[in-house]
Amino acid sequence: MLVSRQEFRDAMARLGAAVNIITTDGAAGQCGITATAVCSVTDDPPTLLVCLNRTSPRSAIFLKNGVLCVNTLSAGQQGISNAFSAPSDKADMASRFAAGSWGRLASGAPVLEGAAASFDCRITEVMEQGTHSVVFAQVEAVRFTDMAAGCLMYYARSYHGLPVAMA
Amino acid sequence: MLVSRQEFRDAMARLGAAVNIITTDGAAGQCGITATAVCSVTDDPPTLLVCLNRTSPRSAIFLKNGVLCVNTLSAGQQGISNAFSAPSDKADMASRFAAGSWGRLASGAPVLEGAAASFDCRITEVMEQGTHSVVFAQVEAVRFTDMAAGCLMYYARSYHGLPVAMA
Repeated sequence: MLVSRQEFRDAMARLGAAVNIITTDGAAGQCGITATAVCSVTDDPPTLLVCLNRTSPRSAIFLKNGVLCVNTLSAGQQGISNAFSAPSDKADMASRFAAGSWGRLASGAPVLEGAAASFDCRITEVMEQGTHSVVFAQVEAVRFTDMAAGCLMYYARSYHGLPVAMA
Repeated sequence: MLVSRQEFRDAMARLGAAVNIITTDGAAGQCGITATAVCSVTDDPPTLLVCLNRTSPRSAIFLKNGVLCVNTLSAGQQGISNAFSAPSDKADMASRFAAGSWGRLASGAPVLEGAAASFDCRITEVMEQGTHSVVFAQVEAVRFTDMAAGCLMYYARSYHGLPVAMA
């Protein structure tokens, strides 16, 4: 290996990313995780991808349910990010969800009130890449707030809020 | 389709993303584009993905060369983003590159001086998803600057710089 995992992580810390709570519900149960590895793929049909860590037992819950909702956090929702990224086993999932208020759109996955945007999706394809599953999901419903709510970002291993004025 | 392309785009405008110049060089020629659809996949081995628009003739250049470099822009590099996102045919590529200073690492793809981070990669797998190619690339070399250089973000259809202090 030409680049160490630590070097890669140090470089990736320079790439700012939006913070999202990825949720699911269905036969395999309700589940939610914090994730920055979310990416728009195409708008025809509207599709995004999410990278899930296969070494976590939670990843299988998303795949079994076949649905997910990407809730992009608004600038003031750092507390919800912390709740969903805290170390936890499945028994703690109820307390994670207690950190926010939730609705439903098309898929049945929990939709976070006050999120900057929510993308309610059906999983269409999964590609294994080493330790992670790259999950492709077609967007079946969206909900979004006024731009004034801002977007919570993770950059340089800490939280930041957008928008900010450019110098 | 349950969600229109415009609704999807309006929702995605709420998801802030780092601005990157993706470059390549090789038998198919030198090329560079501005892209926000970049995502970390796994650190074992260090791998990222880039979504390229298949309807652009430039996408084929990346795939033919088999290498790319993701240059994550620092907060002050908005001018370079504009140069690489301006409408252009292949004849204008030289003027795009004139907007920055460039080096090389392992792959031969251009590496931007002053970038927040540069991920020099070999393309390992390509997955077609509608209008876009999802390109998986293994990182063979990295270079990054001091965190003080910041990161250029695109959010709400305009540029922003990180870091910013949280309220």
